[in-house]
Amino acid sequence: MERKPRYFSEKAKRTGAPPISYLMNAAVTNKDVISLAAGLVDYETLPVAETRSALQRLLSDPARAREMLQYGTTEGLTRLREQALGRYLSGPARQAVAVDDVIIATGSQQLLYLVAEELLDPKDIVLVAAPTYFVLLGALESMGARAVGIPMDEDGMQVDVLAEELQRLTDAGERERVKFIYADTYFQNPTGRSLSVARRRQLLEVAERFSTAEHRIFVLEDAAYRELSYEREDTPPIKQFDEANRHVIYLGTFSKPFSPGLKTGFGFFPRELVPTLLYLKGSHDFGSANFCQHLLSEALTSGVLDAHAEMLRRAYRRKRDVMLAALRRHLGPDVRYTVPGGGLYVWVEMPAGVNTGRRGNYFRACLSAGVLYVPGEYCFAQEGPFVRPKACLRLCYAVPNEAEIEEGVARMGRALAGLRVRAADTART
Amino acid sequence: MERKPRYFSEKAKRTGAPPISYLMNAAVTNKDVISLAAGLVDYETLPVAETRSALQRLLSDPARAREMLQYGTTEGLTRLREQALGRYLSGPARQAVAVDDVIIATGSQQLLYLVAEELLDPKDIVLVAAPTYFVLLGALESMGARAVGIPMDEDGMQVDVLAEELQRLTDAGERERVKFIYADTYFQNPTGRSLSVARRRQLLEVAERFSTAEHRIFVLEDAAYRELSYEREDTPPIKQFDEANRHVIYLGTFSKPFSPGLKTGFGFFPRELVPTLLYLKGSHDFGSANFCQHLLSEALTSGVLDAHAEMLRRAYRRKRDVMLAALRRHLGPDVRYTVPGGGLYVWVEMPAGVNTGRRGNYFRACLSAGVLYVPGEYCFAQEGPFVRPKACLRLCYAVPNEAEIEEGVARMGRALAGLRVRAADTART
Repeated sequence: MERKPRYFSEKAKRTGAPPISYLMNAAVTNKDVISLAAGLVDYETLPVAETRSALQRLLSDPARAREMLQYGTTEGLTRLREQALGRYLSGPARQAVAVDDVIIATGSQQLLYLVAEELLDPKDIVLVAAPTYFVLLGALESMGARAVGIPMDEDGMQVDVLAEELQRLTDAGERERVKFIYADTYFQNPTGRSLSVARRRQLLEVAERFSTAEHRIFVLEDAAYRELSYEREDTPPIKQFDEANRHVIYLGTFSKPFSPGLKTGFGFFPRELVPTLLYLKGSHDFGSANFCQHLLSEALTSGVLDAHAEMLRRAYRRKRDVMLAALRRHLGPDVRYTVPGGGLYVWVEMPAGVNTGRRGNYFRACLSAGVLYVPGEYCFAQEGPFVRPKACLRLCYAVPNEAEIEEGVARMGRALAGLRVRAADTART
Repeated sequence: MERKPRYFSEKAKRTGAPPISYLMNAAVTNKDVISLAAGLVDYETLPVAETRSALQRLLSDPARAREMLQYGTTEGLTRLREQALGRYLSGPARQAVAVDDVIIATGSQQLLYLVAEELLDPKDIVLVAAPTYFVLLGALESMGARAVGIPMDEDGMQVDVLAEELQRLTDAGERERVKFIYADTYFQNPTGRSLSVARRRQLLEVAERFSTAEHRIFVLEDAAYRELSYEREDTPPIKQFDEANRHVIYLGTFSKPFSPGLKTGFGFFPRELVPTLLYLKGSHDFGSANFCQHLLSEALTSGVLDAHAEMLRRAYRRKRDVMLAALRRHLGPDVRYTVPGGGLYVWVEMPAGVNTGRRGNYFRACLSAGVLYVPGEYCFAQEGPFVRPKACLRLCYAVPNEAEIEEGVARMGRALAGLRVRAADTART
């Protein structure tokens, strides 16, 4: 980390460059590189016509037009908060959450930050999957909090290990340090895996079991990719089981199913968290761009968001299939990868001896071959009862087109073959 | 302050309801009240036609349309950063600031928060005018920082007193606690007063003089109302004198000259502050709504922002005149008020014995009469070498129409007359 001026705050001194910035620079400075690293969305499918038609309706009504150009409120547009609630929750859990428990923000990322600010002091603990969303790890580090990784399998975070770890922390007198469990439940970044329904229930039970009258342990459910499911049926979120609205914070976003340029996300919160979250958001910005909230509300009302999300699911599913076929074709049978049922990511495990780290042999070989991925090492907490693999990496099929996905993976294959030749040479000498 | 759960962070425990929320509730729950408190912008003049034409141009170009619907960057749209720089700085200071030293955010408020986060630990000190922008005071309290108020006169903050206070703090061994001087230089909220040009230079000199090789004291220049000047000539900002881009952070916004619904502000920063500010902003939201940034950039390029700002200046000037005339007509000669040369606010000093505080006799009398103002008490730091006046209040003429301004001030006059009658009765008995 660079040397920081003495006049910086303690927090600023702890705040380093996000690991991803190296990758972004590498992609920008070398235009021939195919980036399978960037976690943006597909460019061709952005909703131009849909946005134009929604805005035509909105701006031809002068009263509505003025309303969207005026300041909004800190909590966000009431209509959009109602729409989010109706769209993503049902049953008793829906009844337990009032519109006043919903907050709109500058993407769900801002709500993640605000929740962390509300709950975390330095040395506090957040339990995360191993691997998990690396932007969260950066924010926690900046706040001086500890991330503890819990291993996952095909069904997501291993909830029995989570319970063991919570018991261990409780026995060590650290239970009150544990503020929340981060559960990226749908087609998780970086693996594309979802938490199974059985485990969703169990995870909530574990959070309840280790909470006390004085100390609540929250579940922060990040459902960013929920709308990008390739499966026929939607899975209920953990929030659906939190029938008294006590333990689960649910975060969602309109960036993935519609447009990230509008940077609008939302959260459903247990009531005790809401006032202080809003005071904090008031200090941050007293409300996110009202214009974008009106636009999204109109896109929901008119149905163009639904139609667009359906089209996106088909487009991403096709891209996923292209990537999986390319992986099959260009990488050997000893390379393993996930088959995501939605979202934007494939998680790849290379054979032993391949180092996918940013300074490892494979990363360098891929950069020479003209392809970028996200090193798996970025996605792991500093501590926790999991084995840190050396040979993992994240691929994203959202941004490149089908030909680029094919060619990018082919380059990864050539880079791997090159390493094998060199390893064989080394073995012979 | 309400009781907070034990599991909250220290910061959350320090974070209380903004004082203004009481006023907002009072205005919403009583529709007959005329609010001269709300600090929003005029509704009738919001740029509907301008926005429609800018969007028509943008969205009819599919490539540009997709670009604005995609994620932007954490620092913001390069074109808009260049435009802000060219518009608000010139001369050697302009040469010293690179586009990379400019950051776009969710209003200038977010940059205020990010700077505070970068520089302030609990117990650190910020020097502010007395009175000053109360949202800043709330954010500083939430961060556990101390705001020290410096008295002002017609020419803004008294820079000689500022220097004395800095000397006192230095002698007390607290110089390194002082992180920045908040200078709301143009038509300040709440008084409408500007810092004179001579004092702008002096203020920068003081910041330089009290800085050391190891410890820099920054000037945070908030120029939110610069575009709303009723005077013929623009005044150079303090930033204009900071020819090595070392001491002054300049914050501006497109909310006031165009639309707050787009919630887009910008800042010019000394280079050492930029990387960590961007890492922090990356954790907050990795970039504000890109869509709004493209829209504003187009409004600047096409000239519609300029035309709109010119119209706004005329409209607000007319409203100011209506308010000043009403104050002359309905309040006695012992009531003093500022004559703002721009912006949205008039600061009123009532005669001795009138208590303008939220629980004071005058606030209650005004609420009964059906008019709301911002109590002056909200606008003062907890400490500092200034006299805290009991009888001040802030009026905003931005939101109500001319008839409402007239009637609101008439109600204030009746409320004051009522107090005088009661005081005379009390004196007689």
